[in-house]
Amino acid sequence: MLKIAMLSTGEEVLHGDIVDTNAAWLGREFFEHGFPLAKRSTVGDTKAALVEELMMLSFNTDVVIVNGGLGPTTDDLSAEAAAEVSEQELILFPEWVTQMEAFFATRQRQMPQNNIKQAMLPAKSIIIDNPIGTACGFKLQINDCWFYFTPGVPSEFKRMVKEQIVPDLRKSYPEQAGLECSYFYTFGSSESGIGEKLDKLQLPEGYSLGYRSYLPFIEVKLFGPKRDTEKRMKLSSMIYQHLERYIVSIDEPMLDHLGHLLEDKGQSLSIAEQSTKGWLSHWLLSNVDVAQRCGHSWVLSPKVAADLGVQDPLASIFALAGATKEKCNTDLSLVTGPIKDGEFTVALSAPEGEWGQIFRFTRQYTIEDQKQIIGTLAADILRRYLSGKPVFTEYGATLKVKELFIPTSAL
Amino acid sequence: MLKIAMLSTGEEVLHGDIVDTNAAWLGREFFEHGFPLAKRSTVGDTKAALVEELMMLSFNTDVVIVNGGLGPTTDDLSAEAAAEVSEQELILFPEWVTQMEAFFATRQRQMPQNNIKQAMLPAKSIIIDNPIGTACGFKLQINDCWFYFTPGVPSEFKRMVKEQIVPDLRKSYPEQAGLECSYFYTFGSSESGIGEKLDKLQLPEGYSLGYRSYLPFIEVKLFGPKRDTEKRMKLSSMIYQHLERYIVSIDEPMLDHLGHLLEDKGQSLSIAEQSTKGWLSHWLLSNVDVAQRCGHSWVLSPKVAADLGVQDPLASIFALAGATKEKCNTDLSLVTGPIKDGEFTVALSAPEGEWGQIFRFTRQYTIEDQKQIIGTLAADILRRYLSGKPVFTEYGATLKVKELFIPTSAL
Repeated sequence: MLKIAMLSTGEEVLHGDIVDTNAAWLGREFFEHGFPLAKRSTVGDTKAALVEELMMLSFNTDVVIVNGGLGPTTDDLSAEAAAEVSEQELILFPEWVTQMEAFFATRQRQMPQNNIKQAMLPAKSIIIDNPIGTACGFKLQINDCWFYFTPGVPSEFKRMVKEQIVPDLRKSYPEQAGLECSYFYTFGSSESGIGEKLDKLQLPEGYSLGYRSYLPFIEVKLFGPKRDTEKRMKLSSMIYQHLERYIVSIDEPMLDHLGHLLEDKGQSLSIAEQSTKGWLSHWLLSNVDVAQRCGHSWVLSPKVAADLGVQDPLASIFALAGATKEKCNTDLSLVTGPIKDGEFTVALSAPEGEWGQIFRFTRQYTIEDQKQIIGTLAADILRRYLSGKPVFTEYGATLKVKELFIPTSAL
Repeated sequence: MLKIAMLSTGEEVLHGDIVDTNAAWLGREFFEHGFPLAKRSTVGDTKAALVEELMMLSFNTDVVIVNGGLGPTTDDLSAEAAAEVSEQELILFPEWVTQMEAFFATRQRQMPQNNIKQAMLPAKSIIIDNPIGTACGFKLQINDCWFYFTPGVPSEFKRMVKEQIVPDLRKSYPEQAGLECSYFYTFGSSESGIGEKLDKLQLPEGYSLGYRSYLPFIEVKLFGPKRDTEKRMKLSSMIYQHLERYIVSIDEPMLDHLGHLLEDKGQSLSIAEQSTKGWLSHWLLSNVDVAQRCGHSWVLSPKVAADLGVQDPLASIFALAGATKEKCNTDLSLVTGPIKDGEFTVALSAPEGEWGQIFRFTRQYTIEDQKQIIGTLAADILRRYLSGKPVFTEYGATLKVKELFIPTSAL
């Protein structure tokens, strides 16, 4: 088994001034391409710490991705440390000077003198191109281990990994490559609940399941061989059957799916919020398709919300949904009511009628988490309506208290 | 110098299924308490990988915080690996069984049998209490290095570090402890711009500056000895003078400060958004004080926004600000206009009159970043008004195109 590690460098990562999103991204990217990381480490940007860690990794691993420390300033020491550990001289790579000069020329600027440092690499390095920055990557063998040195800027790092390092690894280790991944986005169940349902599945050789949970979604991933279309489709449809109640989208996040649905159905939408306090509008409108099909959206003042709450909660939210739709002159309106004693209401108003529901949280959530759950639940009601599915269903994390549909003829 | 490392465990961290926020948090927490990390590493939860890494760390470091792998299931292997590396037996710690039984009793449940595993620790372990979970921490010496094993659940981990591990380290290494930190939150300059301004400062022995940048803020931190009040106040006021234009709050995030200002001045607020599409309401209303003093807030439909945009942009946003304030019957209204050709408008309406401004972005931002910058800029206008500062100022990342104040008498 190929042993692959990542080394992140920099005091700012070590002391938590920035979260190492490159590391999480690379871990996922490599895993999904069939190159799982065996280890990750982080050291500051002192040369002694870098040299010690590079040395240790060179004896214990087959492939290491080193991230950061390739900039033009004096505290960028990755190339120098690599030269010391590999016992090579730092030499000038004139082809990279030429490329940097071209980089600055297209920006109508002259290359500053201190950028020369970025073309000084250990003598036996193989340059890895960076089409969008001045820090070239490089590949270098030290003690039987292949090191790939990469820039810390996330956009440059990700592009270099995707376009050059992954293909290079595929060529060097063809037996490793070749995983394909399908994504099922679910909402309304727990990870253990999802796990239990899928535990019964007998996966064929070479297939495995992964879970990634970020409130309020759980992403289920099906890994397996590439170009194995028939088997993958059969497995996908089995997973779909087991999780149908919870699946909100496949191979695209829920919000993108919702945008496509609104677009396809040519429906316009308005939004009124109480409990979600702007979370729902902000989230939905961050999708371009939804934003284009959206009329006004508004967040009610807590005072007005309190006044409305005195009445029967379903009557109150039906009134709000109807008024919003009419006032904004849209096909649909989606509304969240106030939270009272752990209960909240949501409603959808459509040409056919109005769907209102009251739910109760089954456990304690922070206020921010409550907004996310209620907002996503409201969006799921819209999704179910647009997909032609029954609008009413049960969700985890909540208990249905009451549901009521009033057809337009009875309004 | 004390060499401190952190070891995170778990396949889900390694493969990027979850971002290791515990690591960033610990890095910051330890740095600010005078115990900077020298190294961080992550391995999966196979026993071989854990044993290898624990062994390596025991020879190269003085203190290691191990995070994760203390749960009741078979893939939680931290205690077992620790026992192997330290050549100790795993023995039952009956005092922890008693505590777990009490934990379940207060929840009207019986302790499941598999939780017994969480009380099986290497023989010479010193238990570290976990008042909110079933995974106790433990402290153990291996080859001259002190290991602190901690649970992966963030709330349990953070509480254990704050309440028990940091105090224990302070007692064990009194010469290390004793940093104090002041925070200056800035908006509207770049990190290099801030750095240049502060480079001139001559800091006394024992003081240092740190920067943490998360769009759109840059947090400046002043580290120095504890209880050195006079010197700290003098330095703080020097930093304030250098950065006054950019400082939005001190020792509390901008949004909290804004909430306190609104509360202190007893003002009510309404919001209307175009370019920020709900970002501003969502952000402001996530603060309880702001939410309580806020009337309605609304996001205009892009169609209406386009209609309004045809007129002179300042006239259009003044009209919107006035109408919003009047309709919502609040003291103040804060408004973001549409973005057109890279220019955007913001306005504040108050009893004294209306302030309107047009800005232009000086470089390219993603749509989400644009919302954040415009929204924060709008909030800063409100902050300046409530603090009695001149409402108009210049910001980095933007160029002022036009500004106009109309007193109420002229409206």
